[in-house]
Amino acid sequence: MGLEAYFPAWDQLSEAERALLRASATKRTAKKGTLLHNGSADCVGLFVICSGQLRAFILSEEGKEVTIYRLFERDLCLFSASCIMNSLQFEITIEAEKDSELWVIPAEVYKRLMDQSLAVANYTNELMAARFSEVMWLIEQIMWKSFDKRLASFLLEESTLDGSDTLQITHDKIAAHMGTAREVVTRMLRYFQSEGMVRLSRGAIELKDRAGLRKLAG
Amino acid sequence: MGLEAYFPAWDQLSEAERALLRASATKRTAKKGTLLHNGSADCVGLFVICSGQLRAFILSEEGKEVTIYRLFERDLCLFSASCIMNSLQFEITIEAEKDSELWVIPAEVYKRLMDQSLAVANYTNELMAARFSEVMWLIEQIMWKSFDKRLASFLLEESTLDGSDTLQITHDKIAAHMGTAREVVTRMLRYFQSEGMVRLSRGAIELKDRAGLRKLAG
Repeated sequence: MGLEAYFPAWDQLSEAERALLRASATKRTAKKGTLLHNGSADCVGLFVICSGQLRAFILSEEGKEVTIYRLFERDLCLFSASCIMNSLQFEITIEAEKDSELWVIPAEVYKRLMDQSLAVANYTNELMAARFSEVMWLIEQIMWKSFDKRLASFLLEESTLDGSDTLQITHDKIAAHMGTAREVVTRMLRYFQSEGMVRLSRGAIELKDRAGLRKLAG
Repeated sequence: MGLEAYFPAWDQLSEAERALLRASATKRTAKKGTLLHNGSADCVGLFVICSGQLRAFILSEEGKEVTIYRLFERDLCLFSASCIMNSLQFEITIEAEKDSELWVIPAEVYKRLMDQSLAVANYTNELMAARFSEVMWLIEQIMWKSFDKRLASFLLEESTLDGSDTLQITHDKIAAHMGTAREVVTRMLRYFQSEGMVRLSRGAIELKDRAGLRKLAG
């Protein structure tokens, strides 16, 4: 499918604007694990996700990660083109979490559309507000939710994303997602296992009691 | 001074838009400590700060606070009018931290301007990006910076805001700002005192070694 099926506000663009987008956007595929955008090191352009799943995270100097949000089909990723706005002063890293297909819109093209199309400018406002809300939710989780609740939420969310009750994920990986140490994750998972909520095996976590996890997640 | 001196993008508004703003905006004063906006309970409109200082914070169910950002002269506060955007799905509380004077622009008026003025729409984008960057910085602080560094940063920032080396602030209040317990603050301040960086007295903290605090804050 072409970009018009995925680009929000397409209907509200002029013919010239559509032609500009068609001529400048490129399609790319990314294997699971591919780094698509690396902090302030690049301004690769905006991503419009056709299929697959991307993960946006921040990275500490010591290499610790915290997942900020995920991007799914039809989502548009603004922060891989932070050079389009002067006030975007933070660094985010984006990787393909599943094999993905996406359109890349050059930053200067999107900037031009924002400057001449009210529809694009206000769509951008809504998009930023949505991401902002996700980040505020994350702060509340970090500050006020105890780790058992956060981990229960995480397992349920992963299980929904994968469409499976058995998660193929290492404790290290969970720790990276949640900005904590592997030992902390392992300890809590063993507690969950002792409560009959999960079953642990090499490289996998099976959810045994979704209702219990949901209750814990609150 | 009139609103035109404070409203960003005033020069780029049409005569009709200016007239609309002049007719609908109201000026108000708020004594230190006044609650100006209370989570999702209201959508009072946008604040344009003429003088004074506002504080935006989030509040847990148990009443714990974390300061998200501060607003100074000429700043515009969007999130006291979160009803202007569908995707703004979080609750923030705003109080006057000093005696303040501000313009209040009704939410529906600003919404109308956003929908018809590219300048206002894109100014809003820059504003949201700036706040977003502040919040991302805060997440990094919370996740990765140890509490001693955060507290040292906080004391230096407060001292700059107050224009004084002696802060009239209780440990309780600092704990509220930083989303932690009073005991944690008191313990760390005593450590700072033992290192000669501050001197503690009833209701006040005197900064004795700014260079040392700056070095610690990193």
